Amino acid sequence: MTQTSAHVPDDGHAGPLSAYSLKELQERHSVKWREYPPDVLPMWVAEMDTPLAEPIAAALVEAVVRGDTGYAVAGGLPEAYAGFAERRFGRRPDPAGMRLVPDVMGGIVEVLRLVTGPGDRVVVNTPAYPPYFYWLPRIGREPVHSPLALTPDGYRLDLDALERDFAAGAAAYLLCNPHNPTGLVFGEDELLAVAELAGRYGVRVVADEIHAPLVFDGARHVPFESLDAPAAARSITLASASKAWNLAGLKAALAVPGAEAHGDLAGLSMEISESAGLFGVIASQVAFTAGEPWLADLMAGLTANRALLGDLLAEHLPVVGYQPPQATYLAWLDFRVLGIGDDPAGWFLRRGGVALFPGPRFGPTGCGFARFNFATGADRVTQAVRQMAASLTGRPRASGAGALDAL
Amino acid sequence: MTQTSAHVPDDGHAGPLSAYSLKELQERHSVKWREYPPDVLPMWVAEMDTPLAEPIAAALVEAVVRGDTGYAVAGGLPEAYAGFAERRFGRRPDPAGMRLVPDVMGGIVEVLRLVTGPGDRVVVNTPAYPPYFYWLPRIGREPVHSPLALTPDGYRLDLDALERDFAAGAAAYLLCNPHNPTGLVFGEDELLAVAELAGRYGVRVVADEIHAPLVFDGARHVPFESLDAPAAARSITLASASKAWNLAGLKAALAVPGAEAHGDLAGLSMEISESAGLFGVIASQVAFTAGEPWLADLMAGLTANRALLGDLLAEHLPVVGYQPPQATYLAWLDFRVLGIGDDPAGWFLRRGGVALFPGPRFGPTGCGFARFNFATGADRVTQAVRQMAASLTGRPRASGAGALDAL
Repeated sequence: MTQTSAHVPDDGHAGPLSAYSLKELQERHSVKWREYPPDVLPMWVAEMDTPLAEPIAAALVEAVVRGDTGYAVAGGLPEAYAGFAERRFGRRPDPAGMRLVPDVMGGIVEVLRLVTGPGDRVVVNTPAYPPYFYWLPRIGREPVHSPLALTPDGYRLDLDALERDFAAGAAAYLLCNPHNPTGLVFGEDELLAVAELAGRYGVRVVADEIHAPLVFDGARHVPFESLDAPAAARSITLASASKAWNLAGLKAALAVPGAEAHGDLAGLSMEISESAGLFGVIASQVAFTAGEPWLADLMAGLTANRALLGDLLAEHLPVVGYQPPQATYLAWLDFRVLGIGDDPAGWFLRRGGVALFPGPRFGPTGCGFARFNFATGADRVTQAVRQMAASLTGRPRASGAGALDAL
Repeated sequence: MTQTSAHVPDDGHAGPLSAYSLKELQERHSVKWREYPPDVLPMWVAEMDTPLAEPIAAALVEAVVRGDTGYAVAGGLPEAYAGFAERRFGRRPDPAGMRLVPDVMGGIVEVLRLVTGPGDRVVVNTPAYPPYFYWLPRIGREPVHSPLALTPDGYRLDLDALERDFAAGAAAYLLCNPHNPTGLVFGEDELLAVAELAGRYGVRVVADEIHAPLVFDGARHVPFESLDAPAAARSITLASASKAWNLAGLKAALAVPGAEAHGDLAGLSMEISESAGLFGVIASQVAFTAGEPWLADLMAGLTANRALLGDLLAEHLPVVGYQPPQATYLAWLDFRVLGIGDDPAGWFLRRGGVALFPGPRFGPTGCGFARFNFATGADRVTQAVRQMAASLTGRPRASGAGALDAL
């Protein structure tokens, strides 16, 4: 892919996170870079500031050259994902039952339509991915907030609370693993306990595993579908390359049925698959077959940034709570002791010129928190933390015009 | 865009419809080319066999190079569409109120959610775009079939039937103009009569104008929203570059409010816009600003194919009914006198190796009909009609292996 290579900045030693300058990023069309004025550092929505993996870029350019822009169909994507899951997670799901959906959220909605009924209660662990709270009520399902336990050692799954919520009459459990926004990766024992509870109370498990490729060394992703338990066989998982390879705008994900959920998923209409994006299918298929070298580079950079963020917070904002995530490039920061209100993101946006994702949007347990996206260059992570710290000194922020010039 | 240009076949004299060989098209990932085995000529779903317009291809390659694949936002698309509508239709809609949606069908669903209630009746002219019949019931709206009148001179809007259906208690009218599958372009007088009826019976008009850029010489597209009538001011139109520039797989369309419908459309959630595709936004914006020269070439080719299809039918299938469309690259063919059943597409697929779109999927008035997509090279249009005619002689079809080699 000669042309693209010639234009992609040399990411050499610094890895994909530092490949672009701030000026180059500001020319993007995506919401991360269009929502706020250019003097605001955007560290909010889950987009990464990376170039595409080269095989993905090459496949997309080839699709452009072919005029291959018609309606989407799953094609080789299920097989590609099965191979990736086998290599990465040690378990090969059956590609035959997988169905193409436009994105993980859209897939969750479709799956919940199939396995629950109007008015049914769906348990979600809070803090939770904000769109859950929009989409579940929209299809007449009631989200039941089941807070994660916040212990001195950080968040953990609260199995007692989960059992209480299952016992109170839930039709489904929307498991988010790895967990957004906390970055928790649930262990096999915890997941087996969840499966046991789900089996006992007749709760269907729908697993959002969008962040599964982004697990750091020291943790291990166990696909819920792979557990040896009846509730796992009846589960349906949503998987996607969109987070790990930064393809959110291309619109493709897969619904992956457990061994006994193929029948449910067969009810998913062809109209849903046609709502997916063909470039999402093409890019995701390449990501799952040829995207692992790039992913290794990315994870090296994210590992460094995860540590850098810890160092920066220790130096500049030592009272802020930060539990380094076991997966994802999202840090869930606890600003409660600072006394800057329920929405620290609002504070830092107005006074620090840094856009974080507001904690309260993740549910009431998110009050006093904000989500920080560190999938960008180390210099920008550093600058963001410095500006956040400076905003707390009480001095009004200097015009951003010059402050960001070096990034 | 050096690289892309080097790879796009020379479309010189033949225009974009003949740019690719059959073999090149068969390497596409889109549903048109993946649904049937390679010995079937696909003339069914509304994709075109063209290269992308060069400015669109250049913008997409640039987005690939920038890694610009995050979440979609409308950006400059409303302004681009307003300019196009002004130049093409003589009327500039207000870009301020426009909202990004993933596609026209998705936009119709969202708009009907906003302007009608559960259980409400929505009038559609049949034969009708098949997904209407899936999506309207899915959101609890009842499609009311209001057949177009089929006269000796072809189809026309049946205002008496429409009034009957409005008077029987309809909340909305889903106007499809230009009409799919018949290719009718409704005249200003007809549309004013519709607006008068809609106003009289309190029916909201939702206008699917996805084919509006594809109107042939001799007809003129009048945006419903542009009419001087209260029902037009209260209407909401769905517009997209996806049909005219072949971008269906990239997922972007616009909801365009009439002057008094801005408030309704303000209720459309941000989550819906985020379901759109960023490459769809980028490509559509370029289509509407710089895509008209390519569109002129396309229309020249479609005009020639529209006539060619008439000649071929007259020669090989003279009893088949064919009213040359006033817009679109879709021919709605009447096979009823042939006595090959309700679904001629099934016949031609099994015996002729040609895939048409089955008429009955457009509603009961589609029985005995099929839709033929002529947005491909003249040689393939010719071959399809020949194979269809040969299938009627009663001889079993020769293996397709050699028959299509020359295309």
